[in-house]
Amino acid sequence: MAMKVRAAVAHRQKVPLTIETLDLDGPRAGEVLVELKASGLCHSDLSLFDGSRDWTDYPLLPGHEGAGVVLECGAGVTSVKPGDHVIPVAIPECGECPACRSTVTNLCDHYFQPWPRRPFSLDGRPVRAFCELGTFASHIVVRETQVCRIRKDVPLETVCCLACAGATGIGAAAYTARVAPGTTVVVFGLGGIGTNVVDGARICGAARIIGVDTNTAREASSRLAGVTDFINPRQVDDVVGHIREITGGGADYSFECVGSAELWRQAVECTRIGWGMAVMVGVPPSVETVAFRPRSILEGRRIMGSYLGNVKTRTELPQLVEWFVEGKLSLDQLVTHRISLDQINSGFDLLKQGSALRSVIVY
Amino acid sequence: MAMKVRAAVAHRQKVPLTIETLDLDGPRAGEVLVELKASGLCHSDLSLFDGSRDWTDYPLLPGHEGAGVVLECGAGVTSVKPGDHVIPVAIPECGECPACRSTVTNLCDHYFQPWPRRPFSLDGRPVRAFCELGTFASHIVVRETQVCRIRKDVPLETVCCLACAGATGIGAAAYTARVAPGTTVVVFGLGGIGTNVVDGARICGAARIIGVDTNTAREASSRLAGVTDFINPRQVDDVVGHIREITGGGADYSFECVGSAELWRQAVECTRIGWGMAVMVGVPPSVETVAFRPRSILEGRRIMGSYLGNVKTRTELPQLVEWFVEGKLSLDQLVTHRISLDQINSGFDLLKQGSALRSVIVY
Ligand SMILES: [Zn+2]
Ligand SMILES: [Zn+2]
Ligand SMILES: [Zn+2]
Ligand SMILES: [Zn+2]
Repeated sequence: MAMKVRAAVAHRQKVPLTIETLDLDGPRAGEVLVELKASGLCHSDLSLFDGSRDWTDYPLLPGHEGAGVVLECGAGVTSVKPGDHVIPVAIPECGECPACRSTVTNLCDHYFQPWPRRPFSLDGRPVRAFCELGTFASHIVVRETQVCRIRKDVPLETVCCLACAGATGIGAAAYTARVAPGTTVVVFGLGGIGTNVVDGARICGAARIIGVDTNTAREASSRLAGVTDFINPRQVDDVVGHIREITGGGADYSFECVGSAELWRQAVECTRIGWGMAVMVGVPPSVETVAFRPRSILEGRRIMGSYLGNVKTRTELPQLVEWFVEGKLSLDQLVTHRISLDQINSGFDLLKQGSALRSVIVY
Repeated sequence: MAMKVRAAVAHRQKVPLTIETLDLDGPRAGEVLVELKASGLCHSDLSLFDGSRDWTDYPLLPGHEGAGVVLECGAGVTSVKPGDHVIPVAIPECGECPACRSTVTNLCDHYFQPWPRRPFSLDGRPVRAFCELGTFASHIVVRETQVCRIRKDVPLETVCCLACAGATGIGAAAYTARVAPGTTVVVFGLGGIGTNVVDGARICGAARIIGVDTNTAREASSRLAGVTDFINPRQVDDVVGHIREITGGGADYSFECVGSAELWRQAVECTRIGWGMAVMVGVPPSVETVAFRPRSILEGRRIMGSYLGNVKTRTELPQLVEWFVEGKLSLDQLVTHRISLDQINSGFDLLKQGSALRSVIVY
């Protein structure tokens, strides 16, 4: 059963999104129709139409940070039923591939296999949905493997942010590094993702969390999240040397949340010889390579990275919702603006200016 | 009690070593006098006087891959006694610092603290001993923390190579990556160190070991050590793509044993998304940085490195000796030349030409 859906569509690079009415095909076998209640705006969406990324697959429906309610299930769907609250997720979790069966990665093999189906169309022409989601529409059809069922008593317009920013930051500490209790952590960049990393490290029991940011205004809020030492790199000659000194040789873990090749290097070198682990969270522009001094690796440090914080998207994401319910996450402070779908381009303008940590569309 | 000792000394860059008679001070408290029976020649020694490294501390006594017999112990030495067979080691293991107490690194804190004492002198002028060892002398005085006691029934002119090349290669697989049984391993470069990595991976139970080397002559010998697939990069268009294809997505582990920044990148990219681990064994020229594509890290791969294979030098090195006794190591094939101290410069010429895997001085 097809339906008409309002959505924000990108038609080419460097033009704003336009609000359109799309046709949405009903759910087939193994698929789920979700009525979205909210969707966050993410830099990854912006990069699909602001010229920063080499993307050509238009018309495109961006959006990958939604939350909603199941309306209808296709044949064979067993893990959710109509009325369930769900977070649609960018990375499938099939539960059966080697990656899903392993305890070490969330990168389900299906994530790398193209899904030929395109449930959305515009005047009969198929529309690509980003990450096979497309949460900038009021309703979406997704595979069951991309739907995470969550408890019903949490505000969807907040927990939607767990789908991308929350998982990426909290997961970097809790599911990528698996920060050990009593350890010392450095977080470069205390924006939304960095604050989520601080939450994750604090939840894991880090004894000391050193936050690094050039924006002094972030000191107070990051201390609320758990930062114990705040460093403004503009007020310190040598950030790496300073961190090594105050930690007596280097931190146990570091997290780069800015996306700067120079900071990736610093994140490696500020960790301790022998077991220092540098986790790459920020994504440098795709043209760039990141360079390290061989010695900094040979001295026993580890460099790691992940997508969505290495959180298994259907079996582990609900744990993040629990932490939210327990009051352990800074999500409420991170959602700075709630907007309507019609205001989406203004929301992206705020994101570009850096004046919003997170804008969330409420449908 | 001082003694006279024959030794091969470097006086400045780009001149051959000269055989000299040095004065050696007797062992003080916590120190051990060792009569060396053998010492391997390593590229690291060569780099101290061939101009490839910015070294200025002369006169210098190189050599860090020895084996011998304890002659005399200073006050307070308890872990060895005269007559014990020992391998002097470059990295101390004090057993008490945070690194030694941890199970993750061999990099004892004392390794990074300068040892002010210089037991060797030449005409009253102190001589620096490389790694606080200086195994290009028939006798050395070292700290107890740099002496590993081993069983007496093994040939010292072979097991001396465990002190550096053996630990570095075998340890990279067994103590750095901790290769899991049934996994797939890629080794770039099948010289001495690479062959040691193959030994280590095979001992750990790797199901498949892919060896990569431009020298086809190395195929047969590396297959004896455990290589199951040999790739000559000159006969394959795209080594990374080829490895990904034959492994169904990438190897579980890779080891770069050449010291090339380009191969470091290939070593990362030939491993599997989600858990691929690239271990850096080869050391690129010190001026160079190594560059990676951010995505290759963000896709869940890990980059690691170590000194001496992350083998704890006094408590874990004896396990490598056991493997030698059990016939599991290729050391006998790797020691291609045995020479006298007087032939040391010829030995280094062979090393430069690449015509010796390992030359060992027998005292
Ligand atoms: Zn899967
Ligand atoms: Zn996102
Ligand atoms: Zn120690
Ligand atoms: Zn060496």
